[in-house]
Formats: sequence, C-alpha cells, structure tokens
Amino acid sequence: MSEVKVAILGASGYTGAELVRMLASHPSFRMTALTADRKAGQEMAAVFPQFAALDLPRLVSIDQVDFAGIDAVFCALPHGTTQEVIAGLPGHVKIVDLSADFRLYDLEAYNTWYGHPHQAPELQKQAIYGLTELKRDAVKTARLVANPGCYPTSVQIPLVPLLKAGLIAAEDIIIDAKSGTSGAGRAAKENILYCEVTEGLHAYGIASHRHAPEIEQELGEAARKPVIVSFTPHLMPMSRGMLSTINVRLVDGAKAADLRAAWQQVYKDEPFVKVLPAGVAPQTRHVRGSNCCFINAFDDRLPGRVIICSVIDNLVKGASGQAIQNMNLMFGQQETAGISQQPLFP
Amino acid sequence: MSEVKVAILGASGYTGAELVRMLASHPSFRMTALTADRKAGQEMAAVFPQFAALDLPRLVSIDQVDFAGIDAVFCALPHGTTQEVIAGLPGHVKIVDLSADFRLYDLEAYNTWYGHPHQAPELQKQAIYGLTELKRDAVKTARLVANPGCYPTSVQIPLVPLLKAGLIAAEDIIIDAKSGTSGAGRAAKENILYCEVTEGLHAYGIASHRHAPEIEQELGEAARKPVIVSFTPHLMPMSRGMLSTINVRLVDGAKAADLRAAWQQVYKDEPFVKVLPAGVAPQTRHVRGSNCCFINAFDDRLPGRVIICSVIDNLVKGASGQAIQNMNLMFGQQETAGISQQPLFP
Amino acid sequence: MSEVKVAILGASGYTGAELVRMLASHPSFRMTALTADRKAGQEMAAVFPQFAALDLPRLVSIDQVDFAGIDAVFCALPHGTTQEVIAGLPGHVKIVDLSADFRLYDLEAYNTWYGHPHQAPELQKQAIYGLTELKRDAVKTARLVANPGCYPTSVQIPLVPLLKAGLIAAEDIIIDAKSGTSGAGRAAKENILYCEVTEGLHAYGIASHRHAPEIEQELGEAARKPVIVSFTPHLMPMSRGMLSTINVRLVDGAKAADLRAAWQQVYKDEPFVKVLPAGVAPQTRHVRGSNCCFINAFDDRLPGRVIICSVIDNLVKGASGQAIQNMNLMFGQQETAGISQQPLFP
Amino acid sequence: MSEVKVAILGASGYTGAELVRMLASHPSFRMTALTADRKAGQEMAAVFPQFAALDLPRLVSIDQVDFAGIDAVFCALPHGTTQEVIAGLPGHVKIVDLSADFRLYDLEAYNTWYGHPHQAPELQKQAIYGLTELKRDAVKTARLVANPGCYPTSVQIPLVPLLKAGLIAAEDIIIDAKSGTSGAGRAAKENILYCEVTEGLHAYGIASHRHAPEIEQELGEAARKPVIVSFTPHLMPMSRGMLSTINVRLVDGAKAADLRAAWQQVYKDEPFVKVLPAGVAPQTRHVRGSNCCFINAFDDRLPGRVIICSVIDNLVKGASGQAIQNMNLMFGQQETAGISQQPLFP
Repeated sequence: MSEVKVAILGASGYTGAELVRMLASHPSFRMTALTADRKAGQEMAAVFPQFAALDLPRLVSIDQVDFAGIDAVFCALPHGTTQEVIAGLPGHVKIVDLSADFRLYDLEAYNTWYGHPHQAPELQKQAIYGLTELKRDAVKTARLVANPGCYPTSVQIPLVPLLKAGLIAAEDIIIDAKSGTSGAGRAAKENILYCEVTEGLHAYGIASHRHAPEIEQELGEAARKPVIVSFTPHLMPMSRGMLSTINVRLVDGAKAADLRAAWQQVYKDEPFVKVLPAGVAPQTRHVRGSNCCFINAFDDRLPGRVIICSVIDNLVKGASGQAIQNMNLMFGQQETAGISQQPLFP
Repeated sequence: MSEVKVAILGASGYTGAELVRMLASHPSFRMTALTADRKAGQEMAAVFPQFAALDLPRLVSIDQVDFAGIDAVFCALPHGTTQEVIAGLPGHVKIVDLSADFRLYDLEAYNTWYGHPHQAPELQKQAIYGLTELKRDAVKTARLVANPGCYPTSVQIPLVPLLKAGLIAAEDIIIDAKSGTSGAGRAAKENILYCEVTEGLHAYGIASHRHAPEIEQELGEAARKPVIVSFTPHLMPMSRGMLSTINVRLVDGAKAADLRAAWQQVYKDEPFVKVLPAGVAPQTRHVRGSNCCFINAFDDRLPGRVIICSVIDNLVKGASGQAIQNMNLMFGQQETAGISQQPLFP
Repeated sequence: MSEVKVAILGASGYTGAELVRMLASHPSFRMTALTADRKAGQEMAAVFPQFAALDLPRLVSIDQVDFAGIDAVFCALPHGTTQEVIAGLPGHVKIVDLSADFRLYDLEAYNTWYGHPHQAPELQKQAIYGLTELKRDAVKTARLVANPGCYPTSVQIPLVPLLKAGLIAAEDIIIDAKSGTSGAGRAAKENILYCEVTEGLHAYGIASHRHAPEIEQELGEAARKPVIVSFTPHLMPMSRGMLSTINVRLVDGAKAADLRAAWQQVYKDEPFVKVLPAGVAPQTRHVRGSNCCFINAFDDRLPGRVIICSVIDNLVKGASGQAIQNMNLMFGQQETAGISQQPLFP
Repeated sequence: MSEVKVAILGASGYTGAELVRMLASHPSFRMTALTADRKAGQEMAAVFPQFAALDLPRLVSIDQVDFAGIDAVFCALPHGTTQEVIAGLPGHVKIVDLSADFRLYDLEAYNTWYGHPHQAPELQKQAIYGLTELKRDAVKTARLVANPGCYPTSVQIPLVPLLKAGLIAAEDIIIDAKSGTSGAGRAAKENILYCEVTEGLHAYGIASHRHAPEIEQELGEAARKPVIVSFTPHLMPMSRGMLSTINVRLVDGAKAADLRAAWQQVYKDEPFVKVLPAGVAPQTRHVRGSNCCFINAFDDRLPGRVIICSVIDNLVKGASGQAIQNMNLMFGQQETAGISQQPLFP
C-alpha cells in the first residue's frame, strides 16, 4: 500500500511518545511532522532520549506544519485546546483526537463537565466515538474519531456486551478504577513527583471525574436508557497500567460463567481482547506496552452480584494504541499494523 | 511502672520486626526473648540488619524460652501453628496473638475457612477480638487478645460506628481493598518477587479471602444481624499501606456529612483515628510507619450511596502497632506508649 | 531542662517536614514558628497531611515571625536565599543552616561554584561546618552551624578518620554515589516526576556537582593537603537513601581489615555510626528514617585498593537529623534527643 | 527465507520469556519447542500470562523434545546444568547458550570461579564468545555461541575499542555497576522479594562476582595483556536495566572527546550502539525493552581520568536480545530481525 503521511500534534507528551514508539514499526504510516508547544525547535531525541536511534523530524509548532502534505493527524493536545485546532485543519486530512474534546455528544454535558461551551459544535456532530471493537464500522468511514478515554475503554469492553445482552443491571454499577501515573501527563506538578507517588496510593476525583459522563453516555447507549455509575479512580505507584474492578448486579439468575460465555462469543475473533481462564485475575503488568485488554468475571459473595476485572495499558489501548488501531481502519490498513508489540514483563 | 518482660514469638517475620522497631522505644516493655524457627541461633541484626545498632537478645526456638520469666507474649506465628503454642503457655502470661487463629468466634466457620478443626476451642472462648477503639474495655481485662487482621481493621474503624448508628445499610456493602506486599510475609514465593510485583497490580482471593468472615462477624455484631460483604483485595506495588474503598448504601436520607459527623463524635478523643477535612482523600503514604487510621466519606453519583476511604499501615495499625496498643491496655500502660512514631513521608 | 523555642524556616519542603517529624518527639524543643513562601497561610496538615494528628503552628512568611521569642532557628531554605535571611536574625538566636550557603570557607570557591559573591562574608567566618561526629566540640559552642550536605556526610564519615590515620592515599579517591530522589526537593520539575524516575537510573552532575568542593575542603583538612576527588552522583528510583561506593588506594600494605579496625576505634561510642560485620554490605533501606550511618570496607581485586560502602538516609543524617543532632549540642541537650527513631524496614 | 525451527530450553525463566516476546515478531524463526523443568506440562500462558494472546507450544521437559526437527537452540538454563545438555544435542543444531557455561576459555579459571571442573572441555574449544558487535565474523560461522553476561556486555562495548586504540590504560579500571533485579532470575529467594528490594540499594558480590573473570578475559584480549578490574555490582530497585559507571585512566593526553570520536568511528553503522551527544548521561530507562546500548564519556575532575557511562537492558542486549542477534547471524538472517522493538518509556 502507498505511504500515509502522518502528523502528530503534541508529540512531546507521553501519548505523543507512545504514538512515535509504535508508528516506528508501522509498515505504511510515515511520521512526517511532529509538533510541540514549548519544546518546538528541539530534536525529538532531546525531549525523549529513548528515540536516540530513530530518524525523526524535528519538533515544530503547529503553525509551521504544511497540512497540504499530511494525510492523517493524531491530535494529542491537552483537553480544551483541541477543538479550535481541529476546526482549522483542511478537509482532506483524517483525524484521531486523543483528547476529551469530541467525546461527549451532548453539548450541554460538555459545558457542565468542562466549564465552557463547546468551540466546534458542527464538528462534534461528525465525530465518531472510537472504541474500536464496539464501533468498528463507524470508525472505518469516519473523518474525525474521538478516541476514548482510558478509564472508559477499560470499562466499556467488559460492560457494553453484557448490557446489550441484558445479563447485568444498568442501575447499580460500581467501578473502582486504578491508573498508572502516566495518565496525569508529563507537565510538572507537585502531586505527581516521584516522592509523592511511590509506595502509596489514594483515590482522587471521587464521584467527580470527567470520565464518568463519558462512561455513562456509552453504557446508556448499550442499555438503551440513562445510566449513572459510581466511579472512583485511584492513582497507583506505577507508570502504566489500568485496572477497573467493577461490581455489578446480575439479571435473571446469571452467573459469572454466563458473562464469560457472552464475552467469548463477542470477542472470539478480536486480536486485542482476551477473556482469561476461569479464576485467573487479570494483572496490569501482563498487558504493559501492548494494545491488549484482559478481562474476567468472578461470582461475588453478595448473592446476585459479580465482580469484573479489566486491565489495559492506559497509554496503549487506553490512548495511543487504540488511536493507531482506529487510524488503521480509517485508511484501510490491517487493524493490527504497528500495534502488535508483545507486553513487556517483567 | 515496673518493667514488663516481653517475648516475641516469630521475630524473624515482618510483623515481628515491627514489634521490635516500636518496642525499642517503649518506656516499660523490655524485649526479653525473641524466637524464630529456621533462623533460631542467629543474631537479630543478621536477620534484620536495620537493628545493627540495637542491643537485642539472640533468636532462639520457642522451646528454649523460659516463660516463667515472661510477662507478655506477642505471638506473630503463621496461621494454624498458633493455637497449640498458645495453649501450652503458662497461665500467668498475657498474650496478644497476631495470627488469625483466635479471631473467629464460630468454630464451624473456622473449620470451613481454615480447613481444619480448631485446636484450642476452650481458649477461643476466652479470646477477645481486639480492635482497640471498639473493644477497649474488654481488652483491658483480657488474658488473650486476638489481634484483628489488617483488612478488617481498615473496614471496621469506619463502618462499625455507622452500622451501630443506623446510618448505613448492612445489606449492600462493597469493599474494594488494596494492600502493600508486606502483608504477604517474608517467606520466599515467586508471586511476591520484586519483578512480579513492581509497576503493576491485580486482585486476588476475589470473594474468597479469609478476612471476609472476620469482617462479616464484626459488622454483623454491630448491625445486630448477619452481614455478607463483597470483598475484593488487591496486591499493590508498595511495601506497606492499606486502603479500603467502601461503597455503601445510606439509610434515611443520610449524606456523607452525616457520616463524618458521626465519626467526629465517636473518635474525637482517639489519638490514632483521624477524620480528614471534607473532600480530602486519605493516602496510605501519610500513615506509613504510624499507628494512625485516616478516614473520610464522599457522596456518590449513585443516589443514596456513599464512598468511604480508610487508610492504615498494614504492619502497624493493621498488625504490630495495634498489638502493642492492646498490650498497653492489658498492662495498664498509657495506650500510646511505644507507638507514637510519626508517619514517614516521603 | 527548660523549653527551647524553635522556628523552622522553609517548613514546606522535605527537609522541613523531616524536622517536624522528628521534633514532634523531642523532649524540650518546641516548634513555635513554621514558615513557608508560597504556602504561607496554610495549615501544615494541608501541605503535609501526614501531620493531620499533630497540633502545629500555621505556616507564616518569615517576616511574620517574631524572633524575639525564638531561641533556635533551623534554616531549610533554598541555596542562595539563605545568607541574607540569616544575616537579618537577631543575635540571641542560634542557627543550624541546612543549605549550602555557609559550607565553603573559601569565598572564592563559593563564587566559582555558586555563580555569585557570598552575601554575608562576616557570618561565614563564624560558621562551623557541622559534621557532628567529626566537629563535636566546635559545634557545642557555635552560634551558626553549616549543616553538611548529604553526599559529603556519607563520604566524610568513612574517609576522614582514614586520611587522618594515613591509612589511605589522598590522591586517587573515586566516589560513585547514589541518592534517593527526595534530595532534589519538592519543587515541581519534569525530571523528577514519578514516570521519569521509577524503574531506571542515571548519573547526573558528572564531575560538576556542587558537593565536590565541599568534600574536597573537608578531606583536604583531614589530609593536610589539597584533595581532588572523582565524584559521580546518580539519581535512584527511591525516595530516600544514599550510598557512596568509594574506591581508594591503600597506604603501606594496609588491608580492609585495618580500615575496619580504625573505624571501630574512632566510632566505638558513637550512637549513630555503625561498622557492619566483615563482609556485610550496607543497604540504604536499613537506615531509612533513622539518623544512622552504616559503613564497611572490602579488599578490591585491584591490588592495593579497597572498596568502601557508606549508607545514610539523605533526609536524616544527610540533612534534618544531623541538624537536630547539632542543635542538641548547641543547647546542651542529650545528643540523641528527638532523633532516636529506629529505621523503617520494610 | 525458509523457516528456522527454534527450541528454547528454559522457557519458564525471565530470559526465556524475553526470547518468546521477541521471537513472536521474528519473520523466519518459529518457536517449535519450549522446555521447563518443574513447570513442564503447563501452558506457557499459565506461567507467563502476558502471552495469553499468543499461540505457543506447551512447556515440555528437555527429554521430550525431538531435536531432529529443531534447527536452532536457545539455551537459557541455570549455570552449571548447561554443559551436559548441550553436549547431548545432535550435531546439526546451532546453539546460543545464555548461561556462563562456555564463556571462559581457560578451564582452570572456570574451575576456580564455578567450583567444579568443566563438563564439556571439547565443546568449550569450539565455543565463540558472542559479543556481536565485537565478534561478528566469528559468530557467523559458529555452531555454539557463548552469549555474554549482562555486566560484561555493558563494559566491553565502551572499553574494548578504547583499549584496542590505546586510548585508555589497562591497569586501573574501576567499574561501578548497577543492575535491575531481573538479573537474579525468577527462582523464589528472600533477598529478591519485593519488600526486600524496593526503595533501597546495596552492593553485592563485591570484588568476587563471577562476571569479573569474564570481563578480564575479554579486556585482556583487547589490551593484549592480562587485565584486572575493580568490579562492584549493585542491586537496584527496578526490574530491568543496567548501568556501568566506569572510571579509567587516559593515555597520552587523551580527553573524553577523543573517546567519543573513537566510538563514533567504530560504531557508526551499528544499529544497536549509540554514542549520546556530548554531556548527555545515558539512562537505563531509555533502553528498556530494546536491544540498544547507549554510551558516553565525561572528563573527570581527577586529572587524566575519564568517567564512562554505558546502559543496556540486562534482559535484552544483556541476554535474550543479543542471543537472537547472534542466532540471526548464524542463520544468515538480517541482524535486526525480531529485535527492533523500540524502548518502552515511560
């Protein structure tokens, strides 16, 4: 296939670096432009020395990019700054946006959770919410894909098929989620210093995290009715990895084995979703650096309830890996191109 | 006060070492005998070099201890081996047992969860379950205190007063708990090697952990009816610390603020239990090395539910610190003697 | 003894917090004023929640402190800002300065390494370099003690007695030093974010670190001639702890055993310096949270050379613990008051 | 190219798992047999769940492998057990041995350091010491390659060209090396438990580590005279990564810049060796999971000396990656096949 010219906007952050890592082995996507804000002008290897052995374009500011020569844009900019940038891109480029700017269909909800009106409401109508395994057909023909958040990805992969199949109740979903620190980005803040994070943990954004409305939107679509979830994220003393431990109510005498059977059916041909053997708890370290999601279900001691565990790498399936997976579909590439790296353990 | 002569049975494990660390500054408890099994005969400083500067008795086997000269025994032996040892101690010694051997009042439940009949049923009848803040009067006059498990301690401190006050429902308690790796002990096992634990996490013992019946016993007593809990422990990439994130149903229009007010009332004079300011999430690292428990409550997005966070150091308030706290009461000492170390952060 | 009223200038940093942690158990020093710059006005427990259970003065700015009521000042301010502050303090207060501002006797050397002329040259003449075990008598009568740097402390404790005894050569001292990340402070910088530090290491400040002239000054005094050292510090993926691995040339057929014997003689009555048994390598984790220094020496494969290992906690013996040790001497207190905490391991 | 059928002996250890990780993307090597000892009979995904999504042969014992159908053997067995196994393999298979069993040409030295006579002295004569960049031609035609140790790899890549060029002295080489814990393997031992390793460090095997004679053998060959080195390894609180900080004496007025120039010349076409820009310190995390070695040199404060830093991933260039690199050469494959994964950072 002919070469696809790729720009990464926001290449100096962790999700940008992850895109570079994986695209370096992509058979047909070629990195043509890498942008940064404060670090524009620097070599990528000065900003991320792990790329010392790669031949990469120098970081430039967005306005220095000639988008006429670009086919595909990965937008890894901070939330809130993205809508205007994307609105200004020429019509021929296809975009996967890794920010939250185009994930909420409801402009009012956006306003409420993000504290300002949406800046590109027309574009929002075109945007496809791209959880690949669940929206594959829509992604294929999209021009603009809103790449899902990391927590929502880890939650929807197990829950959406169960809600669609009517195996679990929509009313009483309790999500206890744990994320590696890379989810907080690379901007220097006291609360993510090494000494503040190592050897300890805590919940944050309790019942107020912005991924809650995103989860509720998508679970609601699956359940065909409004859904409210309990969502408690935690910051973990680890760089990467995300575990959602989800306690749900079963419907009609279902058991964990029924959930597992339903997943096996839905996901049997998926390269990146794996239902673990009965009784085996998914571990975040076993998907580190890969685009995989491992899931499993366990009968609870509380009658009629089940405990679901779902793990991803927050930077890969939770961000940059899924973004490439989506872009592959948008350009008719093999879905696994560039993202078939094995997990790195130990 | 006159000196109390103390023996630590099982001083070569982590809870044994914690007892030594804290007793080194105790004004009236003197460590007279330290025992080990495989490591008997060694200097304590060879087994735990952090004690190189302390003058401690050499490790001996239990049968080498002359209990005639011992007043107080901390028993930090593995589960299942303890009942016989304690049954063999002379009547004048007072005992705090850190194992699970005397925690379950119901001998049938013990048999079910531990896989063998209880070896000292008569002693079990005398044993007092010693969550100090909740059982202070009984502990003061006890001869044998069953020191609570770490997870049960972190759960009962917030929940027992709320169940007694009728502020939360007993039917739908969902506990997502996270523990540092020291809880698994010092015996060499593949699953707790550094490379298997660092930079990742997973649930374990899902709906089957032995601390569940202990939690249910004590919450049931507080609620005055049988209680079943959902209990999912997780292994964290950290040595110490424990966080229980607990989702419960409120009764009668209560709010998180009401739970906080109830705690403030119950715990206002407690030196080791602290209700954090509204909105502040407890962090395990802020109680590291101390006997403190920090708790807080947050209104959930799910109507009528609340999220409770409770942190302790699993080796201190969850084991050795509380053991000393109990022994202080049993010998009429100041309750905080030897255990007023400040947390070590960072 | 009567109460000593203490001010901590710069209480919102890690060394400030360590002073608070240890002074909380000091029998006669009472924390009367705590200062901060950006965080003035906040409760200490808001800045360091591990102190939630302590009753501490609120953070104020330095100009809000009434030094008339202060006896002792711990100055934990950034390098370069300290000289003026200390010059402005009333004559009756005694000061231990934890910054580098008064450590170099040679004002030219200060200018060279710190890039500006010394702001208080008269005060510099009064300042005593306070490596307690080596300068005890001078510290006792000092008004202003320059508390040693962490690296210099870990190096001087083993080397100064050997140079004085003529057991090692002064010409060829090669120091490979490793420090926990807390040494870099709490100010938010990209290079000390959790994700940038965990699970990796690197050298920094190679042959250009500002602790080199401090080490050379003090080793030169011991050797009675100018000394130049090779000094390569490394940043470790850990919060606390410092290991200096030092390769030196022996004089006159000496062996590691001779060095050990010399140390045993010099340090036999020291509460905080411990020569480990022959063959046992000091580990940083075994002094974590304590004021101890563990040292040992090993014959090298290179004939006539020896490998010395020295460990401290960089925040305690390398900063706040030694500061209290010095202040204890300056006020005629027991030298170990407030700093006898046992190491926290695991 | 036609398929090469590969057996991995010792697939249940960390180096075995690394071989699987990288060979999964190899274009022509096909994993045909995986062996284990205690874990024979298990699925690889039960032993290493990160491979849950791969289709791999079940683990068998070595005697169950039909070597008639095997072309290439990676031998990742413990030291001491390997000589007999390899001696028993049929003549048509080519072997890369990751153990130390065939690294020392001098059978007396082997006996001294490993405590027993060599079990296959005839095979030892055929074995090629396979530090790929330095022995490429010999590796191409070898039947049995002794894959270098991790420490020796990190040391030889920078030092061998400098010794050959006469830029540094052979007499006074001081190596301070730091390794991730995975180098200690997956067998359960107390000293590599998470709680024993995290947040601390120490030297081990001081002046007595078995990699010293291997380093001396190869540096001696480069220097054309016997070499003795000072070698102090340290155990780091990290899974992977190795840094050797090497202090050497320069010859004839050379400077760090001259060493850098020499490396640039020797390594300019090497895909896996990278000389970093002047002044930039190599970090282990920037080669994590990759087969790269980053090196640099810095002028010391000690006149006439230089500080060299060299980083690799101990499991990749230090073991399994280099093993594949060698096997690629032995089968006429592209040298980078299967081992071009980018580093994983953060």
